[in-house]
Amino acid sequence: MLYLWLSVGAGIIGLIVVGLLIRGILKQNPGNKLMQNLSKEIQRGAKTFLLTEYRTVAVVAIIVAIFLSLGPLFTHKVTVNWETALAFLIGVFASALAGWIGMSIATRTNSRTTQAAQKGIKPALSVSFSAGAVTGLSIVCVAFLGLVIVYFLFKGNPVIVNGYAMGASLMALFARAGGGIYTKGADMGADLVGKVEEGIPEDDPRNPGVIADNVGDNVGDVAGLGADLLESYVESIIATLAIAATIGIVSLSYLPFYLASWGIISSLIGVGWIKMGRVKDPQMALNSGTYLSAVLMIIGSYFIIRKAGVVYQNYSSLGPFWAIVSGVAAGLIIAEVSVYYTSSKYKPVKELANSCQTGPAVTVVNGLALGMLSTLIPVIVIAGATLIGFIFAGMYGVAIAALGMLSILGITLAVDSYGPVADNAGGIAEMAHLPPEVRQNTDKLDALGNTTAAIGKGFAIGSAAFAALGLITAYRATVNAFSPHPFTLSLADPKLIAGLLIGGMVPYLYGSLLAKGVGKVAFRIVEEIRRQFKEIPGIMEGKGKGDSSRCVNIAARGALNSMMLPGILAIVFPIGIGFFLGPIALGGFLVGALVTGLPLGIQTANSGAAMDNAKKYIEEGNLGGKGSYAHKASVVGDTVGDPLKDTVGPSINILIKLMSVISLVLAPLFVIIH
Amino acid sequence: MLYLWLSVGAGIIGLIVVGLLIRGILKQNPGNKLMQNLSKEIQRGAKTFLLTEYRTVAVVAIIVAIFLSLGPLFTHKVTVNWETALAFLIGVFASALAGWIGMSIATRTNSRTTQAAQKGIKPALSVSFSAGAVTGLSIVCVAFLGLVIVYFLFKGNPVIVNGYAMGASLMALFARAGGGIYTKGADMGADLVGKVEEGIPEDDPRNPGVIADNVGDNVGDVAGLGADLLESYVESIIATLAIAATIGIVSLSYLPFYLASWGIISSLIGVGWIKMGRVKDPQMALNSGTYLSAVLMIIGSYFIIRKAGVVYQNYSSLGPFWAIVSGVAAGLIIAEVSVYYTSSKYKPVKELANSCQTGPAVTVVNGLALGMLSTLIPVIVIAGATLIGFIFAGMYGVAIAALGMLSILGITLAVDSYGPVADNAGGIAEMAHLPPEVRQNTDKLDALGNTTAAIGKGFAIGSAAFAALGLITAYRATVNAFSPHPFTLSLADPKLIAGLLIGGMVPYLYGSLLAKGVGKVAFRIVEEIRRQFKEIPGIMEGKGKGDSSRCVNIAARGALNSMMLPGILAIVFPIGIGFFLGPIALGGFLVGALVTGLPLGIQTANSGAAMDNAKKYIEEGNLGGKGSYAHKASVVGDTVGDPLKDTVGPSINILIKLMSVISLVLAPLFVIIH
Repeated sequence: MLYLWLSVGAGIIGLIVVGLLIRGILKQNPGNKLMQNLSKEIQRGAKTFLLTEYRTVAVVAIIVAIFLSLGPLFTHKVTVNWETALAFLIGVFASALAGWIGMSIATRTNSRTTQAAQKGIKPALSVSFSAGAVTGLSIVCVAFLGLVIVYFLFKGNPVIVNGYAMGASLMALFARAGGGIYTKGADMGADLVGKVEEGIPEDDPRNPGVIADNVGDNVGDVAGLGADLLESYVESIIATLAIAATIGIVSLSYLPFYLASWGIISSLIGVGWIKMGRVKDPQMALNSGTYLSAVLMIIGSYFIIRKAGVVYQNYSSLGPFWAIVSGVAAGLIIAEVSVYYTSSKYKPVKELANSCQTGPAVTVVNGLALGMLSTLIPVIVIAGATLIGFIFAGMYGVAIAALGMLSILGITLAVDSYGPVADNAGGIAEMAHLPPEVRQNTDKLDALGNTTAAIGKGFAIGSAAFAALGLITAYRATVNAFSPHPFTLSLADPKLIAGLLIGGMVPYLYGSLLAKGVGKVAFRIVEEIRRQFKEIPGIMEGKGKGDSSRCVNIAARGALNSMMLPGILAIVFPIGIGFFLGPIALGGFLVGALVTGLPLGIQTANSGAAMDNAKKYIEEGNLGGKGSYAHKASVVGDTVGDPLKDTVGPSINILIKLMSVISLVLAPLFVIIH
Repeated sequence: MLYLWLSVGAGIIGLIVVGLLIRGILKQNPGNKLMQNLSKEIQRGAKTFLLTEYRTVAVVAIIVAIFLSLGPLFTHKVTVNWETALAFLIGVFASALAGWIGMSIATRTNSRTTQAAQKGIKPALSVSFSAGAVTGLSIVCVAFLGLVIVYFLFKGNPVIVNGYAMGASLMALFARAGGGIYTKGADMGADLVGKVEEGIPEDDPRNPGVIADNVGDNVGDVAGLGADLLESYVESIIATLAIAATIGIVSLSYLPFYLASWGIISSLIGVGWIKMGRVKDPQMALNSGTYLSAVLMIIGSYFIIRKAGVVYQNYSSLGPFWAIVSGVAAGLIIAEVSVYYTSSKYKPVKELANSCQTGPAVTVVNGLALGMLSTLIPVIVIAGATLIGFIFAGMYGVAIAALGMLSILGITLAVDSYGPVADNAGGIAEMAHLPPEVRQNTDKLDALGNTTAAIGKGFAIGSAAFAALGLITAYRATVNAFSPHPFTLSLADPKLIAGLLIGGMVPYLYGSLLAKGVGKVAFRIVEEIRRQFKEIPGIMEGKGKGDSSRCVNIAARGALNSMMLPGILAIVFPIGIGFFLGPIALGGFLVGALVTGLPLGIQTANSGAAMDNAKKYIEEGNLGGKGSYAHKASVVGDTVGDPLKDTVGPSINILIKLMSVISLVLAPLFVIIH
């Protein structure tokens, strides 16, 4: 029972810190009346979207739960049943709750950050980082507490506990894919009419699409990213538990709980360090907190693993420690590589900005090529960490390495998700006509936020790949555990090859559908804004007021409609392959999707971020600055990159995880059918 | 010995037809003095490039041959030796010879096509199709004869015969990657200065880069495509032979020779049907010829396979027949899908053209999304054909299905490669100031050529994937044959997973380097043309003459330099993985590269072709026509798509095949080392 009390204790301590952080935020001055109103409008819009989303999720979740409960009808053996369905629903709820907390606080902090930015960058960073920390810590703690409770209630039966991860995955699908379509559809729609057709600046209050754009920052980059990483976090633990269950040594099942608990404490210490504000340079402050947590995690896990002293098969009892080290290190390396390829401080983005002088086509080709090149190191690092995990602790070690990467998610997510708050704060400064110094401060904060956002995306993809790898390993172990004869999943089997090829195509299909969804939503927003500009008298003179809530609703409905087909595909594809071609083809299918999804995800994320920052670099006055030929080319590049980095790329994370977790949950069923 | 005489007979009959076609072409009127001069300049440029390329290839080939000869130093067992090296050199030579024949005739036919176009489309099609047929048939016959001779000389020892495929692969690497960089570098360079900076039309004789652009059509789309498909063709036969050798039934080794011989005869009949000109509509004429050959191939193979009547393991003696059917059908379906997604006759390109009205960024995003969507059916078809081949005839059936797809390469390549001749003919019409009706005729021919080129690219990727699949199967069989204990290549082995992940990244890395190479070459051409426009007096008035040969030389040297790094990577990567991580990781690596390379190749090819044809559709007067906002956006899309479809995509075919064939040749060595 020690694992239970320690885990619950760590989770509750984390939530107490969250409470303190929230109290600290709410004490801050929320700014003048206009700023408060703007903040409330964004808040309302974000709530509208999340509520619409949650309603849809509730319907889908109940349907899925009913199907899961019907498992026993297919076979008399023990597979999924109503308990799996219950764990699944708890997983959906935990993710929804964490997303709601993060969004509520982020949308309350934006105007407070604007207000603090009047005093300088440091106070503004302090306020917005608190909001990021609330998101990061509440996601980790809620997810972990929910998992611990499910694990305890159902006595660690993997067939049931895996349902919890599937719930988190379903919620992530909607939050990430729906949120991704929403945020870019609203962004492109508002820009196409505002900046391009009417020639008014970004975040201009006359544009009724601007609120929807600001809402998008919250539902995409706070709620979406959070749900995505929550899923990876849960799945890295679940995969470890599932593999431990097939090995059959009980203490191997407790280890992940100890490690995750210590990960929460390490993250709390890192957050505390950043809040103390000892380091002057903001970027350095954030980095030092992250590295502090990473070092603490590694040191603590050494003692935890030595204390546990589990020896199994031929592996040393310290084996899992090396897996943790390789996982933590892989996460940090991938984050640094993302920064190198997407920050305008380094050569790649500078060269890209230079090539903007040759026009939009060359910009886009070079932006795509840059993203393709940036896949090299992350993929090798993940492959290397997998091998290290395996060499030191077998299949269990592979899952532990993934857990290591995600163990300090509390701090990495805190650092990543203050960005959208700063972005919103800038928007409010513009819309509330605050003096340009304020906007300059929020812009600097936003620029820093772009870099941390790139880290967040890199980390999200890397961890998704690793979590999927853990799930696939668990899938394989489960298939073998339930099958009377061993499945080898060998490349000699053409079913496996067919599965690999088809799986490798799915991320492309999925990305294509999402990119088209963005276009559709943008087009509808464009039509609505055009209509308002034409029909509302005095809107361009700032006398009439646009109806921003209509834009918010159109984006919300459009986003959820556009994600239905790709969402259904993500669920139907693995089930179809499992039913018709069997568990071997399904194993290949999952690996195939991972093999293409990983580089495609990295490429789209880094291509998009690099083109975004190349544009910002030119706007800072380089290469002719705003209005130059290079700038126009960079705007095209940025617009191409936006749906790639914020919709296509992130959704692929969800795709590979969701398909893997569905397969894991249904693996016993497929084995019995075939 | 029957196999030998039949094969040599079919090859020689094919070459006789090639001779007759060449005689027919040379009898045609080559046009007036100016047209002849232009044709000669293109011819000289193409020769310059090919000779430079062949010199580089010769150096690399000799180095590789020396390494292969040193095989016995590593081990006393039978692996690669001087005989493999000799077969390798013969493979290089055969591919170089075939490429030279195709290029020589294509560059002699261009002005003759222009001349014929003065009389109408039909005579022009007849002349240019003859050139395509010369390319298609000479490639198939030379490659096949070379293989038969090597097989006979070295008594069918796979370790030696595989060297022949590796030679074809090395030549294809240079022809495709080098040619791809050349053609797009010259194209972009000439357009950026000519069309964008100076505002003179495409193919304007004052632009000294135009000849290089026209040379590029020949070295990229004739020599490059030809070498690519020659490699696939050889490898599909080699893979069948290698697998047959591991099964150990001699008649299984003869079957591919009979089938390939009949494939040549079927292609000859199809070519003859098209040359007879019974069908009025040009598109229909080409299609009917292809389908005629396909049907003949299927009927003939039924009798051949029934006659052979080989029963092995548990498969029916007619098993290979169904494999042939699935391969031929897969090739035709993939070709049709390419047409659907890239021709302006169908919905996808029309919708893409519509979205051009929203600007360049939306055009590019939709163009990329279209390509991603277009991967769905081809991948499923290849996976399906693999399964069918296996179900009816085991691993041997998978290789036979690939052979089926490539068996009628003579006709498919003839249809695909008349396009660049028509393209050149149009350029000559423009440069020689012929009346607009002539240009209209060549334009119609060129538009048809674009569709057949898209078919060619789809077919090239599909067949490359299939050939690679055959090679990987042969690799696995060879590893097991040489290893004392069986290798399972199971997904349970993290070395395999690491190999899969790293392999999946390589096409991205490779594509990135090639895309950058295009940019570099284009930039150098731009500088040279700018210099000539500035320094040569009277050049803009048409009095001074630009020095086009300098542009040709710059493009040639630039292309070969830019492809060195990616070329070396393609060779070093599999060897490094094989040496350091062993044959299991290498197996995963090859499959990983195939799994990502296939959709990436299809996506880039179809995105590029669709954006090209959307531009052409607008230029025909739709959606505002030339000069409209939509047209400008479509030009950006086309320019982004060009290096994707003509450099990145096609080179990925070579990458996955080259890495597979190197691994196959060196497989015994890796087994012995590990």
